Amino acid sequence: MPEMLNRQFILAARPQGPARLSDFKQVETPVPAPTDGQVLVRNTHFSIDPYQRNLMGNGSSEWPAIDIGDPMGGPTIGVVEDSRNADFAVGDNVQTWSGWQDFATSDGTDLRKLDADEAPLSTALGPLGLPGFTAWYGMTKVHAFKPGGTLVVTGAAGGVGSIAAQLGKLRGLRVVGVAGGAAKTAYLRDHLGLAEAIDYKAADFKEQVERALPDGIDAFFENVGGPIFPVLMEYFNKDAKMVVCGTIADYSKTELPDGPNYLPRLITLIHYRFVDIKAFATPYVIDTFPEFLSELTPLVASGKIRYREEFVDGFARLPETLLTLFDGSHSGKKLIVRAD
Amino acid sequence: MPEMLNRQFILAARPQGPARLSDFKQVETPVPAPTDGQVLVRNTHFSIDPYQRNLMGNGSSEWPAIDIGDPMGGPTIGVVEDSRNADFAVGDNVQTWSGWQDFATSDGTDLRKLDADEAPLSTALGPLGLPGFTAWYGMTKVHAFKPGGTLVVTGAAGGVGSIAAQLGKLRGLRVVGVAGGAAKTAYLRDHLGLAEAIDYKAADFKEQVERALPDGIDAFFENVGGPIFPVLMEYFNKDAKMVVCGTIADYSKTELPDGPNYLPRLITLIHYRFVDIKAFATPYVIDTFPEFLSELTPLVASGKIRYREEFVDGFARLPETLLTLFDGSHSGKKLIVRAD
Repeated sequence: MPEMLNRQFILAARPQGPARLSDFKQVETPVPAPTDGQVLVRNTHFSIDPYQRNLMGNGSSEWPAIDIGDPMGGPTIGVVEDSRNADFAVGDNVQTWSGWQDFATSDGTDLRKLDADEAPLSTALGPLGLPGFTAWYGMTKVHAFKPGGTLVVTGAAGGVGSIAAQLGKLRGLRVVGVAGGAAKTAYLRDHLGLAEAIDYKAADFKEQVERALPDGIDAFFENVGGPIFPVLMEYFNKDAKMVVCGTIADYSKTELPDGPNYLPRLITLIHYRFVDIKAFATPYVIDTFPEFLSELTPLVASGKIRYREEFVDGFARLPETLLTLFDGSHSGKKLIVRAD
Repeated sequence: MPEMLNRQFILAARPQGPARLSDFKQVETPVPAPTDGQVLVRNTHFSIDPYQRNLMGNGSSEWPAIDIGDPMGGPTIGVVEDSRNADFAVGDNVQTWSGWQDFATSDGTDLRKLDADEAPLSTALGPLGLPGFTAWYGMTKVHAFKPGGTLVVTGAAGGVGSIAAQLGKLRGLRVVGVAGGAAKTAYLRDHLGLAEAIDYKAADFKEQVERALPDGIDAFFENVGGPIFPVLMEYFNKDAKMVVCGTIADYSKTELPDGPNYLPRLITLIHYRFVDIKAFATPYVIDTFPEFLSELTPLVASGKIRYREEFVDGFARLPETLLTLFDGSHSGKKLIVRAD
């Protein structure tokens, strides 16, 4: 930190369509002083996640959006710099929800103390943070996916999808991952050990789907949306269960895509095959976070659940790093921006 | 009956697209003789229902389809003509599943004895038969629709929709019915007492929707499909529940409609507002039929649940009467063909 000012990226405008750099504005404010019962946290690592597009507002969502002028939201990892709260000591590592700013005060209720001996601190933003929680909740609390069936995970190489796919494996499902490009599908097969990996960017995508799903789809974990779903939905079996966790391909769309119109076909498939489609949002179910941690921490610490991270250095690069999630350039690794 | 032969309409071909008269063939076979434990039933009333299109096969459904050459399926009302089963006497009125034929034998396990003093016999094919059961199951067992919310029922003047709408009212929901034409919407408002009725054929359909749904949609009972759903789905509230009971507008489609493609928008709405969409099929849940009858029989007998019937005379008119369900000429009343 060159000077003791609190750098913040505030939301300058609600995007209409894709988020742009101009939707954010960097400002500097005084470092807040903790009052009795509070701690001052300095953020060192900032999580970059697709759902942050929804935090910026999207016009039709029940996801909580942040206000214009407020710091951009998201989880961080930080260090307690000053404490007037008996539960925290200077130097404690914590996970916060304070968003894109160097410093924030807290009464401690929204902080999670991290133990670097238990798992690498960065996992608190990935497999042991919101992405892992999202995968766990969708795979655990939304539907009872039955062992033995075929689970399809889209965005399977990503921060949420890769955890969902591995949880599916651990729960006895035959897991088929969908991702874009040969590098990601190789990762799914060779490192995550999925039964099949489908490359939605390949010319023979439909043939890959046909080969990978000889017994249809019993469980579907949707992270992506876009044009690949109408191909996959034809494989729904009777009583198939689908959880809509995200639709990253569609978050920024402002116009309906051209036809044909697949909606009546989806409704007909739901009707004919008794497909059950549900969704959820983590802010409304965060009370189950401790249950998630108790299941996932040993799995991550022991390497039974694998993850990949990509670090970007420099507070100033937060906005541009977020935008890479939506422009197709993202590797699928969990993105973390480190403060300079 | 001019001669003692068993007239049958058998399935001659599986329709590709809309069902046609040529998909049925009338044949005459000997009247079957009951063996020990069996009864012989003569059918007097044949139920005509949209789901019968699915019985003919549709290429992608988990609904049980009948075989080519077998009598067309469906519930009937009949009279026991001969009995070698102690549980049934000659002259008993029964509801059967014997389909489109004059006579059928049964061991009694698939027969329901009817009491004309309890409710008119014809109700066994309508509000106290499969249409009523379908409405009841969808409104009772699929989702827990909460009192106080707004329920939208499409096809609300029809045999299933009108029962679902009235059950919604009885359970404390604000019910908005959608139907085609002024006569049907007047029926919904004036006879069924729904809060609002929307005419999907009206030029100001979208304005009617806007006026009828000031508080959005919490519960949705879908019977229709087709182009009106994309208009309605925008009104889903957070945690809205939808049951897909039927998609009569889409049963016979063999090609996808032109765009725009509303599917990504539906998935996004499910994601943003945590909409839960489910479906069911009565053949798989028929074990709850007695529970349905115990709730609905007093409601129908007392007039708290109303119904409308339209009788067509002549066995030979069964196929043409079924086709009226799909060509837009149907009044919405429960169609029953009487044997000559």
